Amino acid sequence: MDTSANLMVKLVLDNWFGAIKRTDTLIHSLTDEQLLQETAPGRNRGSYLLGHLTAVHDAMLPLLGLGDTLHPELLEQYIKNADSKTDHHTPAQLRQYWSEVNEVITAKFNALTADEWLQKHTSVSAEDFAKEPHRNRLNVLLSRFGHLEYHRGQIAYLKGKAD
Amino acid sequence: MDTSANLMVKLVLDNWFGAIKRTDTLIHSLTDEQLLQETAPGRNRGSYLLGHLTAVHDAMLPLLGLGDTLHPELLEQYIKNADSKTDHHTPAQLRQYWSEVNEVITAKFNALTADEWLQKHTSVSAEDFAKEPHRNRLNVLLSRFGHLEYHRGQIAYLKGKAD
Repeated sequence: MDTSANLMVKLVLDNWFGAIKRTDTLIHSLTDEQLLQETAPGRNRGSYLLGHLTAVHDAMLPLLGLGDTLHPELLEQYIKNADSKTDHHTPAQLRQYWSEVNEVITAKFNALTADEWLQKHTSVSAEDFAKEPHRNRLNVLLSRFGHLEYHRGQIAYLKGKAD
Repeated sequence: MDTSANLMVKLVLDNWFGAIKRTDTLIHSLTDEQLLQETAPGRNRGSYLLGHLTAVHDAMLPLLGLGDTLHPELLEQYIKNADSKTDHHTPAQLRQYWSEVNEVITAKFNALTADEWLQKHTSVSAEDFAKEPHRNRLNVLLSRFGHLEYHRGQIAYLKGKAD
């Protein structure tokens, strides 16, 4: 793997970690009461979006072949049967899961080489991957980076809301 | 430049163009009346965010050394002296500028080689770039991809709003 590819992986990771850090700063700036409010009238609550982002990040572990999810119950609650009206967890629990999941995936991401980032993810067969080499780990990370920013823009609407 | 680096550039571009396409679909699904509404109470209107995204994308032309901006007036109106309460343009004009700017940058982006994506952008000196090789065109594109998704998540809140 040449220098260019290593540099490109670093760029993607830096942007990913930057988005995680900005989300950390955002949710630390919100009170639990703010987090429980709707981000806009009739739209998802901040707590739901935090659970959703945590579940999606946790699910990257098996998808990227990096281990089992830490909180398999989140998948059902925040992705498959998403119901943003139900409180499955307290804001304190969600904040803890968010930090924990991101800490674990950060360590795993930093350990991958550029070559490994270009290997297939686990939802694509070896046959399909031979024809579609873009279905690799790095593409999943790019997609999840966009997903995080999408919802961060929505959670940001809780800033300045009355408790 | 090896195959890995070419593939990585393709991944980033595919994610970028995917986000542009999803934004196109979103704004085409909104009426002009919806676009003129606030995305959430007291927050930016859809029309302002569309002008802002267009201005930021237009500004990538000089930043990436790919030419002059098409609509220099947008810089002042939607970035420097942002005032989301003022109507500088009609929704029809903003839709047209958005399409036009993205069409031009798409053509320019597709013409760049992987090597050229790793060249410095115009806001960094050659001396600084030698020490900080991540300050390149590809990093700008990654950052703008996140920026687009951030605001797309907000514009999406206009869906289903009464005209």
